[in-house]
Amino acid sequence: MKRTSRDIRTANRYEVLRQIIAASPTSRQELAAATGLSLATVATLVGELLDLGMITEVGFEDSAGGRPRGLVAVHASGGTLIGVDIAETYVRVELFDLALKVLARADEEMRPGESRPEQVVGHVAAAVGSVVAQAGAEGARVLGVGVSVPGQVDRATGVCEYAPNWDWHDVPLLDLLAEHIAYPLYLDNPLRACAVAELWFGAARGSGDAVVVNLGTGVGAGLVLGGGLHRGVSNSAGEWGHTTLVLDGRPCHCGDRGCVETYVGAPGIMRNLREVDPDSPLLHDGDQTATIDALARAVAADDPVALETVRRTARYLGAGIADLVNLLNPQVVVLSSWVAAALGEPLLREVREAVARHALRRPLTGTRIVLSPIPTDPVCLGAATFALEGALQSVGQRVRSRTVSTS
Amino acid sequence: MKRTSRDIRTANRYEVLRQIIAASPTSRQELAAATGLSLATVATLVGELLDLGMITEVGFEDSAGGRPRGLVAVHASGGTLIGVDIAETYVRVELFDLALKVLARADEEMRPGESRPEQVVGHVAAAVGSVVAQAGAEGARVLGVGVSVPGQVDRATGVCEYAPNWDWHDVPLLDLLAEHIAYPLYLDNPLRACAVAELWFGAARGSGDAVVVNLGTGVGAGLVLGGGLHRGVSNSAGEWGHTTLVLDGRPCHCGDRGCVETYVGAPGIMRNLREVDPDSPLLHDGDQTATIDALARAVAADDPVALETVRRTARYLGAGIADLVNLLNPQVVVLSSWVAAALGEPLLREVREAVARHALRRPLTGTRIVLSPIPTDPVCLGAATFALEGALQSVGQRVRSRTVSTS
Repeated sequence: MKRTSRDIRTANRYEVLRQIIAASPTSRQELAAATGLSLATVATLVGELLDLGMITEVGFEDSAGGRPRGLVAVHASGGTLIGVDIAETYVRVELFDLALKVLARADEEMRPGESRPEQVVGHVAAAVGSVVAQAGAEGARVLGVGVSVPGQVDRATGVCEYAPNWDWHDVPLLDLLAEHIAYPLYLDNPLRACAVAELWFGAARGSGDAVVVNLGTGVGAGLVLGGGLHRGVSNSAGEWGHTTLVLDGRPCHCGDRGCVETYVGAPGIMRNLREVDPDSPLLHDGDQTATIDALARAVAADDPVALETVRRTARYLGAGIADLVNLLNPQVVVLSSWVAAALGEPLLREVREAVARHALRRPLTGTRIVLSPIPTDPVCLGAATFALEGALQSVGQRVRSRTVSTS
Repeated sequence: MKRTSRDIRTANRYEVLRQIIAASPTSRQELAAATGLSLATVATLVGELLDLGMITEVGFEDSAGGRPRGLVAVHASGGTLIGVDIAETYVRVELFDLALKVLARADEEMRPGESRPEQVVGHVAAAVGSVVAQAGAEGARVLGVGVSVPGQVDRATGVCEYAPNWDWHDVPLLDLLAEHIAYPLYLDNPLRACAVAELWFGAARGSGDAVVVNLGTGVGAGLVLGGGLHRGVSNSAGEWGHTTLVLDGRPCHCGDRGCVETYVGAPGIMRNLREVDPDSPLLHDGDQTATIDALARAVAADDPVALETVRRTARYLGAGIADLVNLLNPQVVVLSSWVAAALGEPLLREVREAVARHALRRPLTGTRIVLSPIPTDPVCLGAATFALEGALQSVGQRVRSRTVSTS
């Protein structure tokens, strides 16, 4: 729990690389100014990153009157990272260079009923094989594979303890994946993947305290506190979707009632729509994606049923986000995941108004509420970032190789 | 936001002194083992604490075969600390030695209507003068005065931005106090005072992540995250009392409805009692303390109305605490403040059951729920701890003296 000097060194290494990725090329002096670290510390960390081949020297810049300063930049082709987004109905895999640019992508659809771990692992292995093949020579230098699975995961053991969508209990997912994938593997869930993506590349960059609200089929809040991911004592912090908004309200699949998720997750929004107009043509029964897309188009066309549905949803969402503001007083709340992306600005406007009605003045004045600026799949990006963090963490220690052969 | 090496050094200094206070006498070797810090770091920090006169060398112990190890202990008479608890109806001031033992106490009652800042400041100054006088020679060496005021405070400026009980807005409380009190002053609120008291001396000691639930007239949650107090971007984190438990529920003085505080604060509990039995003889209209005390005695006597009232209260409280468990996944939730102390074990039992009904399994298995073990006023103790932290923080920097003369 307490931070050791090793943790601090790792956190500083993250911070310096984050800054280099954001502002290449840059000098050690600029990095020291941007991170608050001493020039000596920055020089040491830059040396480690150069040794790892993650950054390169790219020349010199004049300094006013002094001697020229060495410039470093991210070494985009120094290796690749793979991010895996296992969702309810699909598996998406992306391969990134070290500037976190997508070089290759593969999607696998999962049919209803495909819920056994072996089936899901098969899709992941196929898609990973595909992106590696697409990337050709680049694909040979994969530093690691980050895997996001929607559920509660034990990072240390690689076990998925509970995944509600497929009713998985204690599935040794990382071991199953390691039978097919020969690269270092890192398991976590979409909440934390989206949060780390915002922390490295999105709206939480430079924020000490941020909340990344994930609006999809499931709902949660990835917490960035004190400049790093807050995981909790058993890596299960962030279950905001299962906090109570309406005591004794709508039944939730978790067994409780009135959970935030039942009002603002995709199925909850469908129910909000049904309450506004039970016969709405926007409703695509059993198809969340089609319904949310239809709703977004109807909002753009000023359809009154759609507008009222977004307003009701924002009313619930705003009360729930106000709770996060009052409790955590963060600098920024980021709306992320596919439902937030689909409903976009119209949802954001209503949410901001609703939060202002519910939150206390003092915590709220410190907080911005924004849509995620990440243009690609934030879960893939975040999962790849876990692999990047893993590679940075293993500096000076042997990486445990987990595997037998590639798929 | 990011932790500098100075922050880390301060946090380590806290940690070492905390450990010495908990286990005097102790050796540098034991301190290194208990804190995870290197022996060299511990030796440096112990040196600083010796220089400050906060600890002393107290002899040697044999080490198996090696040379004798020097022992250090807290230097109880090395100085004193004052903690001030400004509450709704009283001001309590305690003077502590450096082992945080109470040496003197003074209480001032505030009459209804005494709500002007000058009146409150007058009571504080009188009580501080009283404990200094009681302590005699000890009173001459006050290292600092921590002041807790129920409201939203800006620590840096010493301004109380909002105190709902007296309708204070932007009161420069620290400046007003400094006209009467010549010692270094530290301002914060009871949420954070209780949290820091648990972190240093209570149930959160040694925990990375803990939530200290404050049950009084007002309600809140002091957050210990990553081994330190979580303050948020404008020092207003922890307003759990104003998170929504029942959307559109009971009206709250904050202007919103359905806030946790309206169900589990002392006035909320009185309302729960009234709903069970509108004519209950336990009700002392307008007197929260008398009602809560009567309720506690009736619970001890198995009075069915009292038992049902506690059960209803615990049902609300359990749902609200389950939200904290699901969101933050802490190691421990501590029930603190006067309502928790009065209702004690019977409330704790019901709360544990209610939390188990509402929280997710994985976050909950990592979390203990306990009553505060602190036997004295936790707000005074925590306020004095802020003064202790202030004295430790100022090592190597000049303390800004804020004042003119003693009261």
